[in-house]
Amino acid sequence: MTASLGTRARVERARRILDELELDGILVSRAAAKRWLAGFVIHNGDELTSGYSGTLLITRDAQLVLVDGRYIEQAQGECLGWDVRLAMESLTVEAARVAGEHDVTRLGAEAQVLSHADWAALEAAGLELVAVDEPMAALRLVKDGGELAALQRACALTDACFEHLVASVRPGMTEREVAWQLEGWFRANGAEDIGFEPLVLVGVRAAMPHGHPSDAAVTGGQPLLIDFGSQVDGYRSDMTRMLFFGEPSAETRRRYEAVREAQQRAFEAAAPGVIGSDLDKIAREHLAQAGLGQAFTHGLGHGIGLEVHEAPILKDWHQPLEAGMVFTLEPGIYLPTEIGIRIEDDVHLTDAGAVRLTNASRALLVV
Amino acid sequence: MTASLGTRARVERARRILDELELDGILVSRAAAKRWLAGFVIHNGDELTSGYSGTLLITRDAQLVLVDGRYIEQAQGECLGWDVRLAMESLTVEAARVAGEHDVTRLGAEAQVLSHADWAALEAAGLELVAVDEPMAALRLVKDGGELAALQRACALTDACFEHLVASVRPGMTEREVAWQLEGWFRANGAEDIGFEPLVLVGVRAAMPHGHPSDAAVTGGQPLLIDFGSQVDGYRSDMTRMLFFGEPSAETRRRYEAVREAQQRAFEAAAPGVIGSDLDKIAREHLAQAGLGQAFTHGLGHGIGLEVHEAPILKDWHQPLEAGMVFTLEPGIYLPTEIGIRIEDDVHLTDAGAVRLTNASRALLVV
Repeated sequence: MTASLGTRARVERARRILDELELDGILVSRAAAKRWLAGFVIHNGDELTSGYSGTLLITRDAQLVLVDGRYIEQAQGECLGWDVRLAMESLTVEAARVAGEHDVTRLGAEAQVLSHADWAALEAAGLELVAVDEPMAALRLVKDGGELAALQRACALTDACFEHLVASVRPGMTEREVAWQLEGWFRANGAEDIGFEPLVLVGVRAAMPHGHPSDAAVTGGQPLLIDFGSQVDGYRSDMTRMLFFGEPSAETRRRYEAVREAQQRAFEAAAPGVIGSDLDKIAREHLAQAGLGQAFTHGLGHGIGLEVHEAPILKDWHQPLEAGMVFTLEPGIYLPTEIGIRIEDDVHLTDAGAVRLTNASRALLVV
Repeated sequence: MTASLGTRARVERARRILDELELDGILVSRAAAKRWLAGFVIHNGDELTSGYSGTLLITRDAQLVLVDGRYIEQAQGECLGWDVRLAMESLTVEAARVAGEHDVTRLGAEAQVLSHADWAALEAAGLELVAVDEPMAALRLVKDGGELAALQRACALTDACFEHLVASVRPGMTEREVAWQLEGWFRANGAEDIGFEPLVLVGVRAAMPHGHPSDAAVTGGQPLLIDFGSQVDGYRSDMTRMLFFGEPSAETRRRYEAVREAQQRAFEAAAPGVIGSDLDKIAREHLAQAGLGQAFTHGLGHGIGLEVHEAPILKDWHQPLEAGMVFTLEPGIYLPTEIGIRIEDDVHLTDAGAVRLTNASRALLVV
């Protein structure tokens, strides 16, 4: 059976940061952290259009949700055990007021999420602010049973969706149509949403590591790159596969194989205790030996959970990986005007090594 | 014919801020401003998952786009006339370096968008930072011909989509299904995307001003609130209408009529020179007279353009409105456990007064 740490235990873990950094409170602004700690659900794009929905404030003896009026009913329904307060003027004004009521003077906050304007407003209200991005992200690094179950389900749906795409994508369809089809498949098959806006890129367009689906049509003789995922209970999957419409050249086969092997070597090396950036180096060295070192222009992978991109960012993770982490392995090569190739899986690190959560075949697939 | 101000003229307008605030440069982080100034397209949710894609730096004699490697091909294709630079380490490191090359010491930045961590990193690099949120937002307040044409098209699509919904939504469908249907309709009919995640709320759920579509089913005898919009060339529409499945009570009719009349009074009062917050007061007073003042828990409306919510925020706009502004008028009342009613249109302010861009009937619609 799978079980998630209750939110009470999670809040207790957050409170340890108070002691470690001699803080009186922590303001939680990151959407994923709000869901993880309080069950407060903020949907994709919600804060983009509406600004802050709500902010958590955790002190040694209190846990509050300060919400914008539009979210008060939702917060009362979702954040059980939390004291829900309406922020009448603004969240920073209310946060400063509540901090005062609870004798908070030294306050932790996520400097990479909080805007400078909000940070400065809280300082102007007399609070001493301390950045707590890293310890806050560290809380969510190791996934518990309930989290892993959601990730497994999101990944299984992604594998199944890919099977559907292999059977249904044909020359003439546009990138947008393929993106729309996979999104519809996820919604019809139990995902709560897509994990992120999918990348669907035909031919040389795949040389853009972050291109957006366009009206370009799938064409015989051209590869199609699909980077996509679903979302289950807030947890995301993230997989990249390629479809070749027609036999690729020998050079393309050689390059694809180099990427596949780079990923496989990193996968086999992954284990608790291994330094994250060493996995990146293993993949990078293999591609360099294949003459493709310069073409691998991004990092090997990133943690995945309530955020599509979260810690550990492997390339910059100069500490040992731990059992229970879930991250992507996604070497890619980008040769502008020529081709882009990427293969990406989500893996769960166990004491026995890495286990793939996405399992669609990585063999070069000619349709 | 409609024409947009060229990006060159827009950059010249941004440069006036340099003189007004005695700055040497402006760093542009807001996605809408990047598109407006440089044509750099950042899709919905893109920065949510990938962090910054690129940042503009405007000085008196240079205009640069500093991009993450994943976006370099895109920026080179889109940002004509701009010097595209790859940010190898991080955007803040590159921004500080480029600022140095161009003798920038006093740098404007959007404090409401830039994270405190980035702001502090730029200060640590020796730059003096100045918040320029308001003058930057002011650049996009008055829409030109090309912008208005895109807004008109986004609004016309929204009207047509609503007609489709009136004809197709029936009891038994869930909120999610209705949301999915309208999204599909927009994609099939020429919108580049939805304008924002739609709100589709059955019955008492509409008392949540920001509820998210759920598996709750449309039910006979219950109202359905739909708050939605499309996106054309980056410009958004935003309309709210209600469908009543079965005859509402006399009290519901009275309340609906009060909301409709509150919007109509604000609409008729809107003209260049009128103080924005006075429109909010007009709607608020009408609802107060109907005994619904406490139930109107948000502002009357907001500017709309490349962002769903942008200046002018009417409630807080204590200055004269100008011809060429486009904003929503959306009074709403929320009676928890009972009902929520909102009517929202997008209007264009002309010298002859406000013109509605969304034109679906506002009469109480019984299906």
